[in-house]
Amino acid sequence: MIFPDQFIAIAKKKKSRLIVGLDPNLTQFPQFLQKQLERHPTPERLQEVIFQFNRTIIQSTKQSAVAYKPQLAFYEQYGIPGLLALEQTLIYLQEEQQLIIMDGKRNDISHSARAYAQAWLGKKHPIFGHTNPWYSQALTINGYLGSDGILPFLEVEKTAGVFVLVKTSNPSSGELQDLQLSSGESIAVKMAQLVTKWGKEEIGESGYSRVGMVVGATYPELTATLRQHAPHALFLMPGIGVQGGAIESIVRASGKDQWGAYANVSRGILYALSPQELGHATWENTLRERSLQEAENAREALQNLYK
Amino acid sequence: MIFPDQFIAIAKKKKSRLIVGLDPNLTQFPQFLQKQLERHPTPERLQEVIFQFNRTIIQSTKQSAVAYKPQLAFYEQYGIPGLLALEQTLIYLQEEQQLIIMDGKRNDISHSARAYAQAWLGKKHPIFGHTNPWYSQALTINGYLGSDGILPFLEVEKTAGVFVLVKTSNPSSGELQDLQLSSGESIAVKMAQLVTKWGKEEIGESGYSRVGMVVGATYPELTATLRQHAPHALFLMPGIGVQGGAIESIVRASGKDQWGAYANVSRGILYALSPQELGHATWENTLRERSLQEAENAREALQNLYK
Repeated sequence: MIFPDQFIAIAKKKKSRLIVGLDPNLTQFPQFLQKQLERHPTPERLQEVIFQFNRTIIQSTKQSAVAYKPQLAFYEQYGIPGLLALEQTLIYLQEEQQLIIMDGKRNDISHSARAYAQAWLGKKHPIFGHTNPWYSQALTINGYLGSDGILPFLEVEKTAGVFVLVKTSNPSSGELQDLQLSSGESIAVKMAQLVTKWGKEEIGESGYSRVGMVVGATYPELTATLRQHAPHALFLMPGIGVQGGAIESIVRASGKDQWGAYANVSRGILYALSPQELGHATWENTLRERSLQEAENAREALQNLYK
Repeated sequence: MIFPDQFIAIAKKKKSRLIVGLDPNLTQFPQFLQKQLERHPTPERLQEVIFQFNRTIIQSTKQSAVAYKPQLAFYEQYGIPGLLALEQTLIYLQEEQQLIIMDGKRNDISHSARAYAQAWLGKKHPIFGHTNPWYSQALTINGYLGSDGILPFLEVEKTAGVFVLVKTSNPSSGELQDLQLSSGESIAVKMAQLVTKWGKEEIGESGYSRVGMVVGATYPELTATLRQHAPHALFLMPGIGVQGGAIESIVRASGKDQWGAYANVSRGILYALSPQELGHATWENTLRERSLQEAENAREALQNLYK
């Protein structure tokens, strides 16, 4: 089954439009884990601490999340131990049969783009032929390089999904993305049109395409326009939980069948409790309870938009 | 010393405008190494084989290269063993006092952008405080996200350089980069203007800025325009060796003092000999001789442009 069909089926089954980000930031980690690492500052312990944290979050949120979105930057910053913790997390997610959207914003052309696709979307290791532990069902990518930078990501596995950056949630996204082209539309709208072009042969039974897009959830007007230009794209909407202006954006992005838009929540679930509140040896239970509640609240708030 | 000053000093000392790409592709590797790996298909051997190949290339080209540019995709495709081979290569380059431009085309915003910067440009590991083995003097980045996606890369280390993708060498780069804005210029020219803005407080004694740009070497006309818009940017020009139209582009990109443009050569040096020609146990000597010659030819051809 291709990614969008698999994704939509799980979303409907779980009654959820929530994606949970997995962004390990040691300075925000439970004090108990931070102290463990201070006592044994080794690569192995660092890996263990990150994995332990991720596992706790996954255990408590897996009923609520359609998919998990690890942010690659947060693992790369810790070097090899960080990537080993990611690998362990990905294997755990696969065991738990959870979908993975790898947030790598990768981009390059031809052979290099294929190599990135192999790394994150390939089911088999290119040399050893065994299962690729980094295998993810989808990957975020950057479309600045045009088709040569997109199509190789669709080729390595014919099921894989991609989410192309269209309009990002940061304040300065407009410096480039909002500029108007001589043809009348903005760069973001042009990118949405390209998303439609790249994805038009990749639409599954769900009506959604393997080529989706990333759109910050703070632009209700623009979001409606982007949806018009990309009727078959899944919208991955990061950054701001499910409050305020976001709600309006998500509804407008959700498409005809109302299953086209998904909100990513990371910090609101991972770091709802301060490190100090998680200083005790039973931190896992406390974090599990709280993150379950936060994820369920987010899931419900999103579902209630469509009542 | 900030990156551009260090880079220009080395370029002048070595009389070179050549950057050597380190793009390991096992299927193009010496047959001798491929067979070694077939006999012992282990992660350790894979790492060893990649490092051995890179070391041979570095040994033979270090007199000719201003810097080395590992393409991250080619390491990521092999998983953890690939990244361990990269780490070993980076440590070796540091011992040999060679400059490293990490070709990662990384991009993200705020905390995530900082995390990528920490991973590839940070001198110290964020937890253990020891030397970061991945420390590189510069990194390629993608500017689609605007200032929030650029400035964090300049903050982690105040010496680090970045190269922002402006106009890439691939056929489809024009799908987005050549589009005309209502203000009259193309997106690529606009990006060059942003590069100038981001880099204007970061100009060193060499007259060049910490914020450089990536420009494919196939567009002589456009390159001249881009140089006008970004007088202080180092131009990293990949993809096509030093033949034909490239020469004209490089000259036009080189700026007032003629030290502003650098050509990247990867395959022409790494894979000038076929796997079969390197099937014997003394492959290292053969590869060393040939890659030295290819790198020297490229270096000379580039230098001759300015006679």
